[in-house]
Parts: sequence; structure tokens; C-alpha cells
Amino acid sequence: MPEVEQAPKLDQALAEVAAEMAERTDRGDVATYIPQLGKVDPKKFGIAAVTNDGRTLVAGDADQAFSIQSISKVFTLTLALGNVGDALWKRVGREPSGNPFNSIVQLEHENGIPRNPFINAGAIVISDILLAGHQPREAIGEILRFIQFLADDETIIIDREVAASERATGYRNFALANYMKSFGNLHHAPELALGVYFHHCAIAMSCRQLAMAGRFLANGGKNPATGHSVVSAERARRIGAMMLTCGHYDGSGDFAFRVGIPGKSGVGGGILGIVPGVASLAVWSPGLNANGNSKLGSIALEKLARMMNWSIFAP
Amino acid sequence: MPEVEQAPKLDQALAEVAAEMAERTDRGDVATYIPQLGKVDPKKFGIAAVTNDGRTLVAGDADQAFSIQSISKVFTLTLALGNVGDALWKRVGREPSGNPFNSIVQLEHENGIPRNPFINAGAIVISDILLAGHQPREAIGEILRFIQFLADDETIIIDREVAASERATGYRNFALANYMKSFGNLHHAPELALGVYFHHCAIAMSCRQLAMAGRFLANGGKNPATGHSVVSAERARRIGAMMLTCGHYDGSGDFAFRVGIPGKSGVGGGILGIVPGVASLAVWSPGLNANGNSKLGSIALEKLARMMNWSIFAP
Amino acid sequence: MPEVEQAPKLDQALAEVAAEMAERTDRGDVATYIPQLGKVDPKKFGIAAVTNDGRTLVAGDADQAFSIQSISKVFTLTLALGNVGDALWKRVGREPSGNPFNSIVQLEHENGIPRNPFINAGAIVISDILLAGHQPREAIGEILRFIQFLADDETIIIDREVAASERATGYRNFALANYMKSFGNLHHAPELALGVYFHHCAIAMSCRQLAMAGRFLANGGKNPATGHSVVSAERARRIGAMMLTCGHYDGSGDFAFRVGIPGKSGVGGGILGIVPGVASLAVWSPGLNANGNSKLGSIALEKLARMMNWSIFAP
Amino acid sequence: MPEVEQAPKLDQALAEVAAEMAERTDRGDVATYIPQLGKVDPKKFGIAAVTNDGRTLVAGDADQAFSIQSISKVFTLTLALGNVGDALWKRVGREPSGNPFNSIVQLEHENGIPRNPFINAGAIVISDILLAGHQPREAIGEILRFIQFLADDETIIIDREVAASERATGYRNFALANYMKSFGNLHHAPELALGVYFHHCAIAMSCRQLAMAGRFLANGGKNPATGHSVVSAERARRIGAMMLTCGHYDGSGDFAFRVGIPGKSGVGGGILGIVPGVASLAVWSPGLNANGNSKLGSIALEKLARMMNWSIFAP
Repeated sequence: MPEVEQAPKLDQALAEVAAEMAERTDRGDVATYIPQLGKVDPKKFGIAAVTNDGRTLVAGDADQAFSIQSISKVFTLTLALGNVGDALWKRVGREPSGNPFNSIVQLEHENGIPRNPFINAGAIVISDILLAGHQPREAIGEILRFIQFLADDETIIIDREVAASERATGYRNFALANYMKSFGNLHHAPELALGVYFHHCAIAMSCRQLAMAGRFLANGGKNPATGHSVVSAERARRIGAMMLTCGHYDGSGDFAFRVGIPGKSGVGGGILGIVPGVASLAVWSPGLNANGNSKLGSIALEKLARMMNWSIFAP
Repeated sequence: MPEVEQAPKLDQALAEVAAEMAERTDRGDVATYIPQLGKVDPKKFGIAAVTNDGRTLVAGDADQAFSIQSISKVFTLTLALGNVGDALWKRVGREPSGNPFNSIVQLEHENGIPRNPFINAGAIVISDILLAGHQPREAIGEILRFIQFLADDETIIIDREVAASERATGYRNFALANYMKSFGNLHHAPELALGVYFHHCAIAMSCRQLAMAGRFLANGGKNPATGHSVVSAERARRIGAMMLTCGHYDGSGDFAFRVGIPGKSGVGGGILGIVPGVASLAVWSPGLNANGNSKLGSIALEKLARMMNWSIFAP
Repeated sequence: MPEVEQAPKLDQALAEVAAEMAERTDRGDVATYIPQLGKVDPKKFGIAAVTNDGRTLVAGDADQAFSIQSISKVFTLTLALGNVGDALWKRVGREPSGNPFNSIVQLEHENGIPRNPFINAGAIVISDILLAGHQPREAIGEILRFIQFLADDETIIIDREVAASERATGYRNFALANYMKSFGNLHHAPELALGVYFHHCAIAMSCRQLAMAGRFLANGGKNPATGHSVVSAERARRIGAMMLTCGHYDGSGDFAFRVGIPGKSGVGGGILGIVPGVASLAVWSPGLNANGNSKLGSIALEKLARMMNWSIFAP
Repeated sequence: MPEVEQAPKLDQALAEVAAEMAERTDRGDVATYIPQLGKVDPKKFGIAAVTNDGRTLVAGDADQAFSIQSISKVFTLTLALGNVGDALWKRVGREPSGNPFNSIVQLEHENGIPRNPFINAGAIVISDILLAGHQPREAIGEILRFIQFLADDETIIIDREVAASERATGYRNFALANYMKSFGNLHHAPELALGVYFHHCAIAMSCRQLAMAGRFLANGGKNPATGHSVVSAERARRIGAMMLTCGHYDGSGDFAFRVGIPGKSGVGGGILGIVPGVASLAVWSPGLNANGNSKLGSIALEKLARMMNWSIFAP
């Protein structure tokens, strides 16, 4: 395979990727275990890039909001690290799990300490941390306002129907929360931590909004538009490392292998991708692959990263 | 924490790191399950960097050979990919294992397909692939010559005593090999694949030699001195991705989080690190941490990467 | 060891065993994970036997009520088999678990079907079955009345404080119930099935009452006093077989090996033992061994069975 | 179902069972993982009973030898207990495994101590114990002579082709042996312990011979013909208990539930059954059920036990 000599312009690349994805027929299956998510049109595809030098480029359905689901875990982790610092790592590990996203087996073998903050169990602990000193409603509000702040967009909302749908059917998550509680690794009642969890997963954003919200991770922890620091440069690097090793559940190794940039997926079909020093990306296609990650979203990012020579493993 | 504004010169950084490591008293424990490895002086510390622009810089015991052990898996993977291409991935996965390096549990649950080529089971399958059409002696010779070629150094040898020591005590590896054979995922007799495996793990190299051998991975697949291609740029990126997600056993996430560069460790206390576009690194300190990775080696690379702003997750 | 030639009289044997147990100092630890149970005096010891020929013999604290906990699972299983017959076995297995009583790992690997009705997960499914067409209050009442009927004693009650204590701290059981619900193996809301479960575990009985309640199992399914059939002879045998293979959690094999009679233990320190054709036994000593079974209770039954030549494995 | 009032005569019962089994068409699948076993005619069926009062009754192919496979583990356990006594239980547990007969997962979680002597791993440890002070050939000879002695039949032999077939394909057993060796729970080289193991599994016996060999277990440890003691009465009971809880791999609970007598199955399609105080039974039908136990053999024993009212759980 000939290696890229010169990367194309980003707007051309996005358009080309979007056009190719529009023709794909094998788009994966839309998640149905949260009934509300099963209603989404599988033919949707959107992509957006916000560059460190201030450009916002989009293609496809980039302005339609979708349920960001687990992508929200990047933002709750960031917020929780701000609140409690590295003490957080006493309650959550930072290793890939080697198991499906909703596995409970690992918790039994490791005394209720989830392997990382991006599997469900880990994110529920993060929600529990964000509850400290708050009512669930306040903690949820804090998370939403943080994401609105990062995206510079106060129109972002929580889809209450999705949150209710998750609560009504989320027995596996209730099991995880109660199980960790039995080890003392939740400080609040399981239903309170889950209340926070279900609501932040139900935040609805467009690709454009999501790429905006991820800017600080592509820019050493600072909002490139204002220069204001969200997190330290070291913390931004570390969150990126965790996205790379754990951001795609039990398909994280494959995503790193194929795409080569830090990313975080959600079962709503979205993926947030970070190209350090260059751009924050968001892609959305509702159909999922066998590991529960957006099928076309993964392929689109693989193509884009190759066209633009964006792999962090490239010279 | 103040972020680095200007990276120091590399030779200064290496000297500073080596000096600091020399003063450390908590150096971890030398591996003793291979009796021959237990004889090594735990006070040794060496570090070497070979830059893409042709410099070789060293500090400490950088010219003393040590047993590279699992670091050799980077080179056998490279060789096997050259032999059979991506068909290799039908027999080995590419996900982090979420288990210790010598775990057999995962194999039972996943039908004898090891999770990645860097855990023992995966590397034994790679050895089996390298046996195709060969006697063990020939396959071992091919591996050694490949590493000599990469390092441009024909003095590199296999330590036969270490190989014999591993064979005499490597019951866990015999178990893994026989177990995979029972699933049909070895094509040769287990003892033949293990013969290759034990010998490539017993290759002895100095930090200088090891950093030389890793040059192609830091330089897009090409030897920076000659410009000759070892692997394609894409394959070099992918091997780097696999090192990052799987290179430190069940401490891979932590290494990515702290150090932020692709690396591969061995129980002999060595680590090979790759800074894409910049340099190939090797560090050696025999004492190990709880995950079986060089304790001071990890700390040294963390310091060096921070000083030089080398994290691949940095802008 | 000389084999018994002539068994002593049962009343002498009970007295001898009780006297010996009174002198024991290593009595195990009282369960504390249900706070209410931790308040019991560890020096208590009671034993009772009700023979098929109509005698009731007791020694020690045989008339003091204790929390029967998991022993109640014998009675709920009997009741549920009466309600739904062998269809029950589609939702619960009948194999020993090979895991601690509250393990969740097995459920993940076997799709939410618990291994047997005597581990917690299995008993929660049984509670769910008993809920069919009922309010929890009614189902709890039905269980209590069934046990009162078996023991011919309407004074048996549920200890509401124990039930409340279990509900307040039973996160592991909430996890199990929600986990099975996620597989569709609970038909009612987890908290309803658990409401039934926590209450039947909190039934308080004395050794005398418990031995009375077990009579039908020692007598081919019939109440020996009245001749009325509770279950068929085949079902009585089968419940006995299940007690032998699964009645002592992950110590069932050891209990069969040492004692050799069907038994069911509870973390309150009670054990119900069945000698087919001969007698129903109950023993109580609050301190537990490593497997969560009554330490002195097991030893007492081992001695008694040996003295009376009661092993079902004896000629 | 009407309960038996009067048991039929045993010879009639055997004939009736054999006749019914002859008409069955769904006979299960013959084991093929040992190639030599796959050659057996699936239509074979034999049954034999040797009563404590000295009668030998047979039906069907009761005089045709078959590979006893895991049934031999009853005899090697007996022999090893004779050699080392209860010290044996430091190296082997006595709990049901909750896993398939050749599972390796449990060993990793329990430090190389197999759960019981009837799963493969446990029997390999028993073989290792029988090797103490012996060459493999001697240990194998000792086992064979012990079985010949028990059956009072010197014509019993080892099928060397079956032994060779198992050795050539027994990678899973090699894995188990090497795995336990890595934990120090084999004292001899894995291939030596396996040499003993493969040979005792390859002993060929007819139903008549097998029922003869089991007499001591039905008769309190004594040969009923001679009155000579093979093991103590207590040990006979305990071996029976272990057969009941662990004798049919992960179908032991079901066999206890349905049949209700101690039994030990082998993948050759044989089952040894013990009715304490009454008779030793052997049945053979090569086709296996899903748990690896003789399909028709299990059904035949269920019928026979019901007809004769032989369940040890019956009054």
C-alpha cells in the first residue's frame, strides 16, 4: 500500500469519507437494549472536526443530535478528576478490561474495583464521586453545564425519555452498582449513583457539539479558542492515553491498531476522536459492530486518519 | 505542575535520569522463576537512545547484555507478519488481556485463541507460525539473524543457559502450548513451538543493541541509517499501537497513562520504547514491579518522556 | 478405627454430643454481614431429633429460636415444586456450584440460570416463582404457613428486624437479582422477589421446630405422625439428593464426605439433617467455618452420624 | 407416579431394563476425542449386578470388555488413600467442580489444587502419588493387579492401543499436568504422571468384571465373598460420598437427583454404581450425553434404582 506523501485538505477528506459511508449497505445493528435508542434511523451519518487553529468542518448529518451514551464518560472522568484528583484511582483502575462493557466477572475477582472508568462499572463509580455533597439533580446539572461550557453551547440537553428508558431496563447496571456497593466501593445508594449515570449517558449532542466539547483534549488541556485551561497538559495526555487503551470496550486494541488515535465510543453510535495538537473529531452512525462500537464510525475514522496521516503512532 | 516549555538536550536528560535511578533503593524484585535470571545484580541500570537523525546516546550499564525475554516478541511478531501477513490475526487476537501474562483462563473462554501476540500464549503461536517449513533450529536461527540485522550487530547471541533454564522450569508455558494444541491452534508439536519460544526469549542484548534494533519502529518502518524498508509504514504504526495497548501485560494501561509511548517489557528487566519520528529507546533495570515490568525502567521512561515532551498523547 | 457394632441409644448420643460441644472453645465466627445476626451469643448450642417412630429428643438450647436463613430454601423449593412442578428446572439448575454461595461469576457464564436452588441466586428465582399471582405479602404468608404446617406449630414467626437488616445491607443479593432480571430469569421486579427472599430467610425457629418441619423428608414425603403426604416419595428423595450435593454451598462435598447425610445449612448457624427412614435432625451453633456453615453443627452431626451409623453411604 | 410397593426380582429387573434399552434409538454420541474409542459399536449395551449375598446377574453385552476410562479413578483413589492416607487431601480437594471434566480455569483460581480426585486434574495428581518410589511401569502394574485382585480376575488387561491413542491426542491433559506442576502439585515429571494416568484409563473390563471389582464398596469395605477388608468401613462410605457428589463430572447433581446412588462414569460409556449393603452394579452403553456420561447407562440405572427402590435417599 502506498503511503501518503501529502495529506489532502481536511474538508475534502471529510466530504470524501461521508460520501463513501453513504454508499455502505452493511451498517451494523442499532442497539436495542435501550428501547429508545432502537428508534433511530440506521442510515444517519455525520462527521465533524474542530481544529486547534479554529476551523469547524462538517459533513453529513453533523448537526443532528444523538444520544452520546458512554462518550459522556470522558467528561465525567474529567470533572471527577478535577474534584478529587488522583485519589480517584483508588476506586477505579486504569487497565483495559479484557471483557465486555457490562461484565461483572472481573468485579468479583478484583474486589469490586472496576478496571477503568470507561466500562459501565467504572463510570458508575465516577457518578458516585460526582454525587459527593450533592443531590443527584445537582450532580446531573453540574455535568450538563460542564459539557455545555466545553462545547460553548447552552442548547445541549438531556433526553429525559432516554434516561427513563435506561432506568426502566438497566438491570445489568443495577446489578453492577449493587455489587460494587457490597464491596463498599459506592458511597451513596446505588439508585442515586445510577440516577446520575443514566442521565449523563442520555445527554444528546450533535457531532458538531461533541467535537467542540473535545477541543481541550486535542490542545493540551486548553480551550484553543480562549486559551483557558480546562485541565493540565499532563492530565489531558493521560485522559487521551486512557481513551486509547480503554475507549472502545473490548475492541480498544483493534481501534488503536486500525485507527491509531484516542477515541471514545457510545452505543448511540457516536465516537469522539482526538488528534493531539491538531483536531477534535466526532462521528456518528447508529449501527454497531460486534464489540458495541459504531461500525461505520470506526471505518470512517480509520479512513480519515489514514488520509490525513493522523495516527499518533506515525513518525 | 508547570509544563515543559523547552525540552533539555537528550544526552543531559539521559544522564540525569541515570543518576537519579542510581540513588533509588526500592528497585523491585528480580524475577526468580527462571533460575538463571535470578542471578543478575539488581543494582544494574542502563539506558540508550538511538535517534532518527543518527545519534546513539547512552548512560549507565548500557553496554552490558541482559536477557531480553518478552521484548523479543516484538521482533518475532514483525517477522511472522512478514511471513504470513494479516492471516496471522486469525490465530491471535489483538486486544489487551485483562489478565496476568501467563493466564490460561482466557484461553478456555475463547477457544484457544490468545488475546494478543505479547502474552506468552500469543507469542507461542507466533513461534509456531515461524516454524512453518522449518526445523526449530532453523527458525531460531532466522529470528536471531533478523535481530542481528535490525541492530546491525552480528555479535548478538542466544544465552543457551537461560534457554535451558526456561525449558527446565517452564511448566506454565508447556501448559499453555498443550492447551492451545488441544484447540488446534498450534500446527506443530508443543515442544517444538516452545523450543523456538524459549530460545528467542533467551536472546541477550545490551541497551545499545536493543535501541538499535528498534529503530525501524521509530522511523515509519525504515532503517533510518540506510533508508531500507523493514516493514511498511502502516505496519510499523500498527506494531506500535499493539505495544501501547498490550506491551506491559496487565500494566499496559498504567504504562500508557504514565509514560505515553509504545513500549515492550521483558522479565529480564528490559523495556524497548518507541518515540515515533524521534527515537528508539532501551532501558534496563532487573527489579520488577507487581505487574512483572521493570520498576526503575518504567520510572526512568516516565521521567525521560516528561522531560523530552515525548508522549504521543501530547500536542 | 473400630467400626460401630451396636449403635447407642439416641438420647444418650445426643446428650454426649451436646456435652462434648459445650467444651469446645474454637467455635468459628458468627456471621456479621447481616448486622442483626452478629448479636447472637456464640456459646449457644442446641440439637433435636424427631424420629419416624414419633419420638422427639433434644439437648442443649434446642428450644431457643434462631434465624434459619438458607435452611428455609428447602421449604421454598418444596413449595415451588408443588406449584409449578418440574418446569421449575428450566429456570434453575441442579448442579453443585463450585463457587461461594453469593458468587455472580457463574451467572455470567451460564446466562443467568443459577446452578441450583440452594445458592442465593437460585433461591431468589424460587421466590420469584412463589410470587406468581401474589403480592409479596401473600407469598411470604404462604411460605410461613407452610412451615408452620410442616412443624405443626403456629407460633413460628418471621423476625422482621432480621428481614429489615438483610434488606438494608443485602447489596450482593440485589446484584444477583438484577443480574438475573437482565437475562429475563426473574418475572417480577427484583425488589419484589427479594422482599420474599429476605423474609423467608428471616424465619426464626428452634431446633425442635426445625426437626419437626423436616419430618416429611425423612419419611418418604409423608408426615409420620399423620400419614398425610406432603410430597411424593420420589420428590422427597430428590430433594434429599439436592441437599446432599448442594446443601452446604462450596462445602457440600466435605459435608457428604464427613457426615454422609443430606443436610442444609444457614448462616444463622443452623443445619437441618435428614436420615432417610429414620429421623429428621436439627442442630444450631452460631459460629461458622470457612465455607459459611455452622462449625460445631457440622462436627456434631458428623459425630452423631458415626455413633448411630446413619451415613446413607453405609451398608 | 405410583410408588413401588414390592421390588421385582433383580434378574427380572435387569432383563426388563436391558430389553427396554435395546429399543432406544437416541443413544447419544460415542466419544471421538480419543480416536480409538470412536470405533466402538454404539448399539452395545450391557449390565451386571453382583450382590452382597453372592449372586452375579447380567444382561446384554455384559461380558464384552470396554475401556473403563475414568471409572478407574475410583480404584486409583482407593489405592492412593491406602498408600498415603488422608494426607492425600492436601493435594486434592473433595468438592464438586462446577466445571467440565477437563476445565483448567478452576486450577488457576485455586493455585493448582484440583477440586476432587475424579476430574482429570485430580486423577493426574493421584497418579503422581502412586508413582512415589516407583517407575511408571511399576505403578501401572500395581494398579492393574489391584483391580484384578478386586475383581478376582487375572485376565483383565490394559488396552495399549487406547493408552497410546490417549497419549497421542491428550493435549488437554498435558496442559493440566504441566499447569499443576507449575504450582508444585506434581512431584514427578508431568509425562510420567500422565503415563500412569493414560494407562489406568485404558484398562478394559466387562460389566461383569467391573461389578465384581466394586463389591467392596457395596459391602462396607470388605470383599463379601471372602470377608477380607479392602478398606475400612469409614473409607468405603467416604469414597461412596465422593462418587455421589463428584462421580459424573458436571452432571453429578443430576445423577444424584435422578438415580440416587453413588456412581462413577467413564467416557467409554461405562458406569459403576454402588448400592450400599446390597450390590455393586456396572452398566455400559457407549453413547454419551451432553455432560460426557453414558446416556443409556444413566437411564438404565435410573430405571433399575426406581424398580428396586435402591435410592440411598429413600427411607
